[in-house]
Amino acid sequence: MSELEICMEKLILLFHKYADEDGDKKHLSKKEFKKLVETELPTFLKTQKNPKAVECIMKDLDTNKDDKLSFEEFLPLVAGLSMACDKCYNLQQKHCKK
Amino acid sequence: MSELEICMEKLILLFHKYADEDGDKKHLSKKEFKKLVETELPTFLKTQKNPKAVECIMKDLDTNKDDKLSFEEFLPLVAGLSMACDKCYNLQQKHCKK
Repeated sequence: MSELEICMEKLILLFHKYADEDGDKKHLSKKEFKKLVETELPTFLKTQKNPKAVECIMKDLDTNKDDKLSFEEFLPLVAGLSMACDKCYNLQQKHCKK
Repeated sequence: MSELEICMEKLILLFHKYADEDGDKKHLSKKEFKKLVETELPTFLKTQKNPKAVECIMKDLDTNKDDKLSFEEFLPLVAGLSMACDKCYNLQQKHCKK
């Protein structure tokens, strides 16, 4: 398997590691999403000033408003954070060259 | 670093591994994108019947039509493939239970 394939597989398995905890294995419940963010994104969570940050993010991601997140609804969080990290990476590279 | 953070870091480094090959380090040129798809997504590429598949995919992803792909433009490919893989994963899980 290629690096990218391994990365995609890891994303799927990671989603299911949390989504499989309760009955509905295809979705993250509020509790499961909270656990995922607290465990997987502690650094990001520390930057959030709103104490209800996790609830707010979930609300934003839950496009069909069914109070749970599918893998499809979860992905924009990963994409958004990756884009933010990439901007930091580019700034760092620029800075290193100086 | 958490599993998810490692995964996002890998995605960024992988993009830059290919994007850094020519002058413009923030974007994938056509040549760089072709190399990325051929190297990182060989299994996916084999399922494509159109011999110009890589060009077509690039055209779809290149939303601002500047003939190169930013990290932001590249991410929907990863998201789309991950979603397709997740569907397979769910089907497989269902099948395994029978």
